[in-house]
Amino acid sequence: MINILSTIKLPEPSIEEIKKQQTEVNFRFVHSKDITQDDYEWATVLNTYGSHIKHHDITDFKNLKWLNVMSAGVDSLPFDKIGDIPVTNARGIHKTPMMEYTIGLILNYYKNFYQNQVDQNNRFWNKDVSTAELYGRNVHIFGTGSIGAHIAKVLQVFGVKTTGYNTNGRAVDGFDETYPMDERNEHVNEADIVISILPKTEMTNEIYDQAFFDSMNQTAVFINIGRGNVVSDEVLFYVLDNKVIEHLILDVFNTEPLPEDSPFYNYKNLTISPHSSATTGVYYERASEILIRNLAAYPDISKMENVVDGNRGY
Amino acid sequence: MINILSTIKLPEPSIEEIKKQQTEVNFRFVHSKDITQDDYEWATVLNTYGSHIKHHDITDFKNLKWLNVMSAGVDSLPFDKIGDIPVTNARGIHKTPMMEYTIGLILNYYKNFYQNQVDQNNRFWNKDVSTAELYGRNVHIFGTGSIGAHIAKVLQVFGVKTTGYNTNGRAVDGFDETYPMDERNEHVNEADIVISILPKTEMTNEIYDQAFFDSMNQTAVFINIGRGNVVSDEVLFYVLDNKVIEHLILDVFNTEPLPEDSPFYNYKNLTISPHSSATTGVYYERASEILIRNLAAYPDISKMENVVDGNRGY
Repeated sequence: MINILSTIKLPEPSIEEIKKQQTEVNFRFVHSKDITQDDYEWATVLNTYGSHIKHHDITDFKNLKWLNVMSAGVDSLPFDKIGDIPVTNARGIHKTPMMEYTIGLILNYYKNFYQNQVDQNNRFWNKDVSTAELYGRNVHIFGTGSIGAHIAKVLQVFGVKTTGYNTNGRAVDGFDETYPMDERNEHVNEADIVISILPKTEMTNEIYDQAFFDSMNQTAVFINIGRGNVVSDEVLFYVLDNKVIEHLILDVFNTEPLPEDSPFYNYKNLTISPHSSATTGVYYERASEILIRNLAAYPDISKMENVVDGNRGY
Repeated sequence: MINILSTIKLPEPSIEEIKKQQTEVNFRFVHSKDITQDDYEWATVLNTYGSHIKHHDITDFKNLKWLNVMSAGVDSLPFDKIGDIPVTNARGIHKTPMMEYTIGLILNYYKNFYQNQVDQNNRFWNKDVSTAELYGRNVHIFGTGSIGAHIAKVLQVFGVKTTGYNTNGRAVDGFDETYPMDERNEHVNEADIVISILPKTEMTNEIYDQAFFDSMNQTAVFINIGRGNVVSDEVLFYVLDNKVIEHLILDVFNTEPLPEDSPFYNYKNLTISPHSSATTGVYYERASEILIRNLAAYPDISKMENVVDGNRGY
């Protein structure tokens, strides 16, 4: 029997499909914080979020054969404790929602839709709302993986010149040009918009420092939909306080959730979004599709998709 | 000499470029309502908005040789009084800003960015904001001209199935399928989003009636970025009051500007935008480029672009 302990409620149709495909499968759905001693011994498969693992000690699972995380970032996984247990994740299903979210964030800012809604609330037909165009802009994207490349390709259709940054500056489809990450401060002055989609690794830690933002154009916009670790709060406050650039749009932070008394809530030149660029109504359906395919291959790890390499960290 | 009376302040660089190109050109910039008897006699070219013409009698211009309107809709032009005077307009420059605006409106609604901003204002990290995906949706576009086709082509890149409606159902690049306008009520139930970009003509008057909206899916969204005449206020209130569809996004109305006491301001299931889908910071620059090219061809009308056919009405 395959005993799946899931801290995520799966969509009913997905559960039914799994049961149809696999007669040898049992489910237990339980909140991360409510896992019992019996659960720890019962589970052979754990299905959870990477960020939930911290609530318990992975070594308490006595019979774990497979760990599936329904998220893309695996930075919160304790690979030292996970040891040889195979880990799979949900990478690949993020590129569509994150592309839509990012293009939406840009257009929302450029077209000033929030002001329109405020005017509507005040019963005011206001023709004097200034709007800008995306057409002809330069967008610099840090991270040229599947998400970054997907955003770049769609931006090109909008008439945007796309510049990508990755470790060695290798060319990637969707980018008009690419540079090595190390050369970022030399080129970022050309950007109207900077988008960071970098994962949390030792290499990306506080990669955007004060000098980076000082190199940016004063009229530029910085968008982070990757991970908050890439820039320290200190640098962010420096940029916000001194209006080093025109606007910041942050979906991710060093501390999440932002506490109510966070000073980040004080800034008009910052748009906050609660780490929600990937999560749409169809997210769990898509994540379940990967789980279903991997269950069909289980226990042959070599035939499973999205197996995580603990050494690379993604 | 070419005497250009302009009720629109042109960008300084455009004026300089015209003066460099044409030594025989004089400018007068004047507000529509302040045109003097001397202006009426002096002007050989009138540069204005279509909607401004109503403020004066076009036959008062005694020496008019050319009328340029820096807008696309020519529904407000009194062609009976204009007679043989050639008319040019600014069509063609709207497709980029209107495409961006329309995709932005859709993503703004699907991603619920307004709620994020309200939460930010309230210092609230709210993960429970529901968002939807554009991917895989069916979008039905009424009007398959340059603007409609441009929106359709970009929507296809988002993984949208595009359906177009025009007079005879002819195929148009960018649309996966097209239908004659007359068959709209038979097919519109398949639409997740309906976009109307129809111009104001006798044919389009109140083309969307109660039966049309009754045919739509209850979860669908209706967007009008064309002209307000396509649906009566009575039908709009019927749709809004009875929640016949999920949401309406209207950039244009039968009465513009909407007065402060307009009942349209009472609805949560309506997003109002003040007829601003086309007007961005670069609008006058682009409209001036057409004027500059046409001035170079003047007085040879056959070499001018965007000459309006008064009989067709666009």
